[in-house]
Amino acid sequence: VTNPILVPEIRELLATDSLDVLREFVQSSHPETVAELLSALEPGEIWQVLSKLDPALASEIFVRFEDDIQVEVVDPLDRKALAWLVTDMASDERVDLLKRIPEEKQHALLPALAKAEREDIRRLASYKEGTAGSVMTTDYATLPPSITARDAIDQLRVAAPDKETIYYAYVVDETRKLLGFVSLKDLILARPEQRVEELIYRDALSAQADEDQEVAARMLSKYGLLALPVVSAEGALVGIITHDDAMDVLAQENTEDLEKLMAIGGSHEAGAYLRTPSWIHFKNRCGWLILFAALGLISGAIVQNYEGLLLQFAVLATFMPMMADTGGNTGSQSATLVVRALALGEIKTSDLFRVLFKELRVALMLAIVLAVLCFGRVWLLGSGSTAAAGTSPNRIGLAVAVALGLQVITATLVGALLPIGAAKLKLDPAVVASPALTTIVDITGLLIYFSTAHLILSG
Amino acid sequence: VTNPILVPEIRELLATDSLDVLREFVQSSHPETVAELLSALEPGEIWQVLSKLDPALASEIFVRFEDDIQVEVVDPLDRKALAWLVTDMASDERVDLLKRIPEEKQHALLPALAKAEREDIRRLASYKEGTAGSVMTTDYATLPPSITARDAIDQLRVAAPDKETIYYAYVVDETRKLLGFVSLKDLILARPEQRVEELIYRDALSAQADEDQEVAARMLSKYGLLALPVVSAEGALVGIITHDDAMDVLAQENTEDLEKLMAIGGSHEAGAYLRTPSWIHFKNRCGWLILFAALGLISGAIVQNYEGLLLQFAVLATFMPMMADTGGNTGSQSATLVVRALALGEIKTSDLFRVLFKELRVALMLAIVLAVLCFGRVWLLGSGSTAAAGTSPNRIGLAVAVALGLQVITATLVGALLPIGAAKLKLDPAVVASPALTTIVDITGLLIYFSTAHLILSG
Repeated sequence: VTNPILVPEIRELLATDSLDVLREFVQSSHPETVAELLSALEPGEIWQVLSKLDPALASEIFVRFEDDIQVEVVDPLDRKALAWLVTDMASDERVDLLKRIPEEKQHALLPALAKAEREDIRRLASYKEGTAGSVMTTDYATLPPSITARDAIDQLRVAAPDKETIYYAYVVDETRKLLGFVSLKDLILARPEQRVEELIYRDALSAQADEDQEVAARMLSKYGLLALPVVSAEGALVGIITHDDAMDVLAQENTEDLEKLMAIGGSHEAGAYLRTPSWIHFKNRCGWLILFAALGLISGAIVQNYEGLLLQFAVLATFMPMMADTGGNTGSQSATLVVRALALGEIKTSDLFRVLFKELRVALMLAIVLAVLCFGRVWLLGSGSTAAAGTSPNRIGLAVAVALGLQVITATLVGALLPIGAAKLKLDPAVVASPALTTIVDITGLLIYFSTAHLILSG
Repeated sequence: VTNPILVPEIRELLATDSLDVLREFVQSSHPETVAELLSALEPGEIWQVLSKLDPALASEIFVRFEDDIQVEVVDPLDRKALAWLVTDMASDERVDLLKRIPEEKQHALLPALAKAEREDIRRLASYKEGTAGSVMTTDYATLPPSITARDAIDQLRVAAPDKETIYYAYVVDETRKLLGFVSLKDLILARPEQRVEELIYRDALSAQADEDQEVAARMLSKYGLLALPVVSAEGALVGIITHDDAMDVLAQENTEDLEKLMAIGGSHEAGAYLRTPSWIHFKNRCGWLILFAALGLISGAIVQNYEGLLLQFAVLATFMPMMADTGGNTGSQSATLVVRALALGEIKTSDLFRVLFKELRVALMLAIVLAVLCFGRVWLLGSGSTAAAGTSPNRIGLAVAVALGLQVITATLVGALLPIGAAKLKLDPAVVASPALTTIVDITGLLIYFSTAHLILSG
């Protein structure tokens, strides 16, 4: 995609009122491309461009701006201009915008809209953030089961301009209960007089409106659907989630999981790294850091508790960082694999023992390899010049190697256990973040290290 | 979705040769559901079921099995049975399967296929893993620019059974150069005698066949497309990536990024945690662990180097783990945010200084808060009973707080710098994994800690 018109040129076109050139450029490009280009203009200028367009196109471009630009553009608009913009907007995008503008502005706007739209907004706004209902659109096509394929295509043709997709049409009875769906492809392939009820996929997958948006998006992805119908508790069709919105949901959930794993808090909806103010970044990162720093002092207390041993065998200090790091690394690895497998539905919490058994086998292999290498290193290069009298490098090597092996096994099992435990408690497995785990296995690691060393060296 | 028929019942149906019941169940369910259920059977039984079905349906179910089940099912098949299965298979899935079976079997199969199919396989197999070409399908619909909407719909109707989608049709000239695309929706909305060239989106987005699959999938996602055309270096259409394959690519890339961040190596295509043998898990995790454990010894050497200072001010050992942990945590946080922002295209490597400036501001805030809290902790609770004579708790507190602040700033900047540096060197930013970073800032942290303590306490 090339951008034939650049910002100064757009300003020039606005100044000289060359609307035809402007319209032609906007109509020949993808709305996403137009929105990206216009983002570089001032909010007032953006509105100048949008207001010259057909409202359907204007709103299609508008919804592709970053959230903060959307708010800046609508901020100075009066009720009439705002109503013009939102009337043709996709129903899910419209509700998202309204949630972002000040409440008095929302209340001022609603009377300017048609009754059906007001009710649509009220209904959509009632679903909690993060549910399937909050990401669905109500711009879907429905068909009764009894009409013919020919009539169905005619109905879809009429409905098309207002719908997000006509490639799937949902078949409902008089009470709006979802019976199934037909694809436009099947309608086109059918004999014109065939009835919709003969073509219907009856076992249509659907999501409950109050279900987690991630579960719904993963279902759509797994079955390769263009859209997933969303139903009420009574089984009535209330909306659809389209494939592009599902992709957005999954991208957002992935970012969220990753940030949770690194103990970064806060909402990640906006997601734009550079646009997020520094103090928000600070706020999202600060809390956990303080907690883990405080917990780090427990490790420190353990070190201080074994001061006597450290003074006697000063060489033990050399292996302390390695012991802590390796525990953190092995634990984070197994926690990450388990968190991801849970997120993708590859394992369930009931698989706890299968997972622990698998991790135990991996941990034993890792422990043996690392312990042997560690012993070899001490044996080959000596343990350092300050080894206390009364111990051999072999004995130091044995102590360090045994402790490292035990630490790897403990850390791996803790790393696998904690996310599954969190999931069993209905917590997000990713809250057992890598820093939390590192801090925990730091403590266990130092305890293992000093007690093993005490047993082997002072024995 | 309910599973009305369970494994023992399927075995019963096979034993009693009740083909009609079996067929009816298979046809009334989504192929994904059928594949999931059949996965519980033995490979031989799976083949028994599939061979009783229409080949198009059999292959649609077959491609939804896990990779290893696919291989087990086709392993005992003769050339004729294998040809029956793969002839109707989607072109991208067929190549993936062939890549997985032994070479002599591939060579035995090819002569049993039609010439067009052999060439299609040869062409698709030539694209390297991870490129747009390797995930595209050749089952797309094309139209010449000059025909009418009515004729176009007729052509698509005829082509539909063999195509992955007919909702987008790609318009090509006689040399197969991609001119743009038309949607079935626009064809249906158009007057029947309107020509395709009037309806075409000329600025169609496309990917190069040798481009990164992730770039192509993100483009499709960003623009909310159903499919993205893939072109050769000469601009000729060679395939399309469909939205469901793009979702799979993004899920795979997300897993890969996450695992790289945690220093887990290996290929992640299969992705199934429990199916992957323990020794493969071991192999994927072992290498980096050994490297980081070895690097951990550098931190140990630093500790040993400052043995004198530690003996004089034994209380310093208490704060050592906190110093290392906090550096690792802050560094991992900023590295994670930068890796994710790079992956989503929110920042480019040329934004280096904007990113560093932003991270510096965040780091200063974090450093001040953590340093003040740390000083307060030492000041309030004392630094421990073993503080050496000649220093006040205030002085110890000052040394620890200053060192912690400097460590937070260093670690944050290193965490932001390394992934962008890796990207500039055309490496994957995620290779600067959290364990690598932890190990690096462990070393810088201890150096900062001991030199600060030396300056303030021994001065």
